[in-house]
Amino acid sequence: MSSPLVVPASARSWITYPETSHFPIQNLPVGLIAVEVEDELELLPVSAIGDQLILLPTLVAEDMISEFEWPLTPLTFRRLRRELYSLFKDDNPKLRDNAEIRADSLAPMHDAQLLLPMEPTSFVDFYSGIHHASNVGRMFRPDMPPLLPNYRHLPVAYNGRAGTVLPTDYEIHRPNGIQKIGENVVYGPTKELDFELEMGVFIGVPSELGTTVSVDQAESHILGVVLVNDWSARDIQRFEYQPLGPFLGKSFATTASPWLVHIDALEPFRVAQVQDPAPLPHLAQKASGLFDIHLEVSLLTPNMAQPEVISRSNSKHLYWTFAQQIAHMASNGSSLDVGDLLATGTISGESPDSFGSMLELTWKGERPLVMPETGEKRAWLQDGDTLIMTGYAQGDGYRIGFGEAVGEIASAP
Amino acid sequence: MSSPLVVPASARSWITYPETSHFPIQNLPVGLIAVEVEDELELLPVSAIGDQLILLPTLVAEDMISEFEWPLTPLTFRRLRRELYSLFKDDNPKLRDNAEIRADSLAPMHDAQLLLPMEPTSFVDFYSGIHHASNVGRMFRPDMPPLLPNYRHLPVAYNGRAGTVLPTDYEIHRPNGIQKIGENVVYGPTKELDFELEMGVFIGVPSELGTTVSVDQAESHILGVVLVNDWSARDIQRFEYQPLGPFLGKSFATTASPWLVHIDALEPFRVAQVQDPAPLPHLAQKASGLFDIHLEVSLLTPNMAQPEVISRSNSKHLYWTFAQQIAHMASNGSSLDVGDLLATGTISGESPDSFGSMLELTWKGERPLVMPETGEKRAWLQDGDTLIMTGYAQGDGYRIGFGEAVGEIASAP
Repeated sequence: MSSPLVVPASARSWITYPETSHFPIQNLPVGLIAVEVEDELELLPVSAIGDQLILLPTLVAEDMISEFEWPLTPLTFRRLRRELYSLFKDDNPKLRDNAEIRADSLAPMHDAQLLLPMEPTSFVDFYSGIHHASNVGRMFRPDMPPLLPNYRHLPVAYNGRAGTVLPTDYEIHRPNGIQKIGENVVYGPTKELDFELEMGVFIGVPSELGTTVSVDQAESHILGVVLVNDWSARDIQRFEYQPLGPFLGKSFATTASPWLVHIDALEPFRVAQVQDPAPLPHLAQKASGLFDIHLEVSLLTPNMAQPEVISRSNSKHLYWTFAQQIAHMASNGSSLDVGDLLATGTISGESPDSFGSMLELTWKGERPLVMPETGEKRAWLQDGDTLIMTGYAQGDGYRIGFGEAVGEIASAP
Repeated sequence: MSSPLVVPASARSWITYPETSHFPIQNLPVGLIAVEVEDELELLPVSAIGDQLILLPTLVAEDMISEFEWPLTPLTFRRLRRELYSLFKDDNPKLRDNAEIRADSLAPMHDAQLLLPMEPTSFVDFYSGIHHASNVGRMFRPDMPPLLPNYRHLPVAYNGRAGTVLPTDYEIHRPNGIQKIGENVVYGPTKELDFELEMGVFIGVPSELGTTVSVDQAESHILGVVLVNDWSARDIQRFEYQPLGPFLGKSFATTASPWLVHIDALEPFRVAQVQDPAPLPHLAQKASGLFDIHLEVSLLTPNMAQPEVISRSNSKHLYWTFAQQIAHMASNGSSLDVGDLLATGTISGESPDSFGSMLELTWKGERPLVMPETGEKRAWLQDGDTLIMTGYAQGDGYRIGFGEAVGEIASAP
């Protein structure tokens, strides 16, 4: 078992980028792009540095890095990051001074079509954002304590639909669905289209049916961390969800960001976790599994020139960690599979400007957001609106960024 | 579009079998077996007639039937059944009188290791058994109407875990999980292990994201029909399921029967469907999509010599049809994928001896079943118990059978 690769804050690359870049030499995430080869789309594994894509198969072919199998495992990803760190460090002339291979192995990121970093085998969505869960309780069960009795004892979750997890920049069709309007039950386009600001982890190491995963080993199953937007249709969800939970109000689309960020790159950003009551022994994690990752949601309507930030939150507001979610999921003997995507649920902060959904930001649509540039109001998302999620951990002079998860709303079919 | 193949009740094969056989010439389902070839397990597509497996690749190699790609589509499965019907009909000498090929292409079923007919891409579990839903309402919401307001307006469903859908004869480990006992929250083996008697359909024709599936076309997406046992841990489920539905109380295991029965073979068994109120237009199916299929659950404890039937039910008790479930699932523009497994939820009849779960049969464990052979009581399933589900449509002198979905309970890990 190799030790984590934490690139020093002071490290610099011979590729230059501003301090606000999501992809400094401290990050080195992996993703997939689609390239047209003889009229067929081929998938190409890439990393990123500054505003450049690193075309990994070219570096392998030129003997600049070791061969690897795709999908990576957490350990082969760690080795790859170690090799890329060495290759792109400012004092290493090997690639820096080889203009030909440099030209072949780097490409501007802005031209690329970024895909999902892997096809989800399953999609499980947790409810680990305690302020979100409390807000929902206050809205829909005003006469009861905001949190249900199970909330602090286990990471509540439901299974979502893996087949409709989509890459960034994929059009989101407003779903049709069954809603109750007054006394009438009708089928039509949702009027309450919403986003949910979440993070997620892709599983890279499976576990066997009938076995469990220790909470202190759980992070070693993570291949990478992403941003997730669990698009939701609140009116459809409201009528359907009793007693078995959300189904069509969620299954029409989920957007994930394109970069798998290795958990090693997030190591400097662990923050203390407070849980009361103490979790059951099999969920009690020795090291803190919470991370200080700034999260941001912006909205761009068709009439606006620039997106407007509508929420600033942080992954440290989660009550349950990635590791606790994984250990819980395997605690009944269910197998983990490579490609399982475990999302956190909506991550809201305490203050209203940090809420992670329109449901909370506009309090069920009662207090619409106003876009300063145009004066437009938004209780829910409208056709033509573009929603942009982004996030990064702020280091000393650098950022570990996640890129963006973007979706534009198209009209109902 | 070819017409359905309904084999006449009077048709006979040159292979003989009793009238109670699940696999007469009227059925001709498909499945997969595992065969050891040079120390490696290979998957072999098979059909069945009487007590014999039909080794399909051998028949292709011998030019007895056309080549086919696996997995089949509903239409290639229809063509295959047509060719098998012709080949095995009593008056066709082609294979009947060729002892060598007959020996190579048939094998006794009882020796075979039957697998899942296809790996589920997703597993969606509906709640379409109205007597089950009513029983659950009576037990857990005694002061309210037994059915929730949405029940007769839409087929309620949740996403399950596809990765733990298991073939028949696969050991079921009693899951550990978090339960509330009095005021204490503990993690340990479930004390309320249950089965759920269900049917399911595997999808064989996909639909595109952003499109819907008409309810009258929905059956053309079905590759085949199976039996499903959605194993459940009631104490785990009870504490975890608010507000997002069942998760670990279900995800540890689901058993499916090995044979894909073509919907054509069930054509003679359609029965009238009564729905009040009339479903919304997009869920209103012109032909009845309900089928008269007898379903049976037997229990064998380690002390018993013979399994005891503990429930006799029928798929005609479903409120929502396979087709309505499919149309509903795609009604929000979510894509259907080949391999999606859509199960019905528990199919209970009206009378207590037709209930499809221990929860209902023993009324929350309050009235344990007594096994006549040994006098043993069962409020819930115990370690070493074997649960056997089976089902068939009864024709005039023949049965369209589904084989068995069997699971034996192993102790918690």
